[in-house]
Amino acid sequence: MFNNVTIVGVGLISGSFALALKQKGLAKNIIGVSRTQASIQSALQLGIIDEAMPLAEAVKKSDFIYVAIPVDATIAIMQQIMDLVTDKQIVTDAGSTKLALCNALAKHPMRSQFVATHPMWGTEYSGPQAAVNNAFVGRCCVICENQKSSKWALDAIETVYKTLGMHVVYMDASSHDTHAAYISHISHITSFALANTVLEKEKEENTIFELAGGGFESTVRLAKSNPAMWAPIFMQNKHNVLEVLNEHINQLQKFKASIEQDNTEDVLALMQNANKISRILK
Amino acid sequence: MFNNVTIVGVGLISGSFALALKQKGLAKNIIGVSRTQASIQSALQLGIIDEAMPLAEAVKKSDFIYVAIPVDATIAIMQQIMDLVTDKQIVTDAGSTKLALCNALAKHPMRSQFVATHPMWGTEYSGPQAAVNNAFVGRCCVICENQKSSKWALDAIETVYKTLGMHVVYMDASSHDTHAAYISHISHITSFALANTVLEKEKEENTIFELAGGGFESTVRLAKSNPAMWAPIFMQNKHNVLEVLNEHINQLQKFKASIEQDNTEDVLALMQNANKISRILK
Repeated sequence: MFNNVTIVGVGLISGSFALALKQKGLAKNIIGVSRTQASIQSALQLGIIDEAMPLAEAVKKSDFIYVAIPVDATIAIMQQIMDLVTDKQIVTDAGSTKLALCNALAKHPMRSQFVATHPMWGTEYSGPQAAVNNAFVGRCCVICENQKSSKWALDAIETVYKTLGMHVVYMDASSHDTHAAYISHISHITSFALANTVLEKEKEENTIFELAGGGFESTVRLAKSNPAMWAPIFMQNKHNVLEVLNEHINQLQKFKASIEQDNTEDVLALMQNANKISRILK
Repeated sequence: MFNNVTIVGVGLISGSFALALKQKGLAKNIIGVSRTQASIQSALQLGIIDEAMPLAEAVKKSDFIYVAIPVDATIAIMQQIMDLVTDKQIVTDAGSTKLALCNALAKHPMRSQFVATHPMWGTEYSGPQAAVNNAFVGRCCVICENQKSSKWALDAIETVYKTLGMHVVYMDASSHDTHAAYISHISHITSFALANTVLEKEKEENTIFELAGGGFESTVRLAKSNPAMWAPIFMQNKHNVLEVLNEHINQLQKFKASIEQDNTEDVLALMQNANKISRILK
C-alpha cells in the first residue's frame, strides 16, 4: 500500500506498528526517526526499520508519517511535519491524549492530511526491544475529528488499522480525553501509587518477591510503565485525570470508613457494586 | 498418600486443591462438605469430589481435612472439627488471614494436628466451576506457627504443597497478616475501588466495553472477586489493611497534588520510584 513509511520515535507503539505494517504487506520500506542513536541501532538490528534519517529528509521521502512519541513532544514535532507535507501524504499520531494536539493543528493549512488516532493497545515496556508482533489485534482504535481529515487519508488509515485487526471508533477529541482518563490514565496512576505504597511500607523486598501472587502482579504491572511517556499524558489531560483521581480517592475513603467502623454491610455493598464491572468487561 | 480427604467448602481453592491431589495421586477419595446443595451437585458433576456428607461424618472418615471457606466462618467450623479429630488426622486451612484463627486454636488440646497454611494462589472467580487444574504451581505457600504442629503433620502438609509445585515459606501469623495486607489485600481494595470509580463516573457502559484495553482489564480484574470471601478478610486484618490503605490514599494524594500544581518533576519522580517494583517482581 505505502512505498515509504516514516515512524517518528522508534519504541513500543511505533515499533509494533512498523512490524505489523510489514507483516500485512502494507509498507515496503520503513524509515526510522529518533534522537536516540541507541534506539535507531536497536530498531535496525531488530528489523523494525529499514533505514534511519533526519526528520525533514524522512518526511520528504514518505507517503505516510506515523508519530508515536511523548504527547508533549508530539505537538512541536507535528508542527514541523505538517509544514513539510503535501496533499499526497498522510500524517497520523498514536498519542494517548487528543484534544491538545487537535487544537494545535486545527488551523494548519494542511490539517486535512492529518488523521488523529489512538490505538488502544500497549504494554508496560518501552523502547524498540519492547515491540512485538501481532500487537493491536482485537483492540479498539479511536479516531478523532474525522471530519477534519480528507476522505482519502481517513479511508487509508482506517483500512490500515482494520487490517491490523482493530475496530475503529469515532469520537470528538474532548470525549476521547475524558474516556481515556477513566479507561486508561487512572489505571496507571493507581498502579504507580500502589507500587509506591508497597515500596514505602514493605521494606522486606524478599518477602514481596516470595509472596507476590497473580493478584498483586496484575494490579501493579502498569507501575513498570515509562514515566517520560506518562507524565505528559497526565499533564495534558489534567482536568479529566484530576476528576477521576478525586473520585477514586473518594471511593477508597468509603472502603476505609466502612472498615474502620466495622461496617461489614457497607463493605459488602461496595464490593457488590464493583462486581458490576464483570458485566461490561469481556 | 491419603485414603480419604475432606474438603470443607467446595469452591475455587478447595476444588482446585482436590483436583491437584487426585492428579498427583495424593488422595484416593475426596469428600465434599458444603451447606450449598448446588455447589455439592456441581462439584460431583465436575469430578472434584467423589461423595458428599455432613461435616461430622466426613471428619470421622478422613485422614486429612482441608478447610477453605470465608475466614470468619472458618473459626467456628474449625472449633467443631478440632473437637472431633484424633492424633491420626491432619487439619489444614487455606485462609488469607492467619492470626485470628491461630489465636482461636492456640489452646485447643489437639492443636498439634492443625497446620495453618495460606497457599498464595487464586483467581477472581469463585465456586466449584471456577476450580482449575494445575493451580498453585510456582506459587508460594505460607505456613504459620509451624512449631505448634506435630512434626508428622507438618511434614505431610509440606510434602503435599511441594508436590503441587509450591515453595513453602515459614512465618509467624502476625507477620503473615502484615505482608498479606501489602501483597494481596490492598490490591483487591484498589481494584474494587477503581471499578466503583469508573462505574460511578463513566456512565457510557458501551464506551468502557469498547475502549477498555489490557491495562484497564488487568488493574480492575480483581474487582470481580467474591465479596463474601473478601469482607471477612478485610475485617479480620483491619489493623494492617487500614495502615496500607492510608498509605495508598496518601500516595494517590501525592500524585494529585503534583498534577494540580503542574509539577512535572514530582510526577516523574513518583513514577520513577514506582518503577523500582520491576526489580522485585519476576
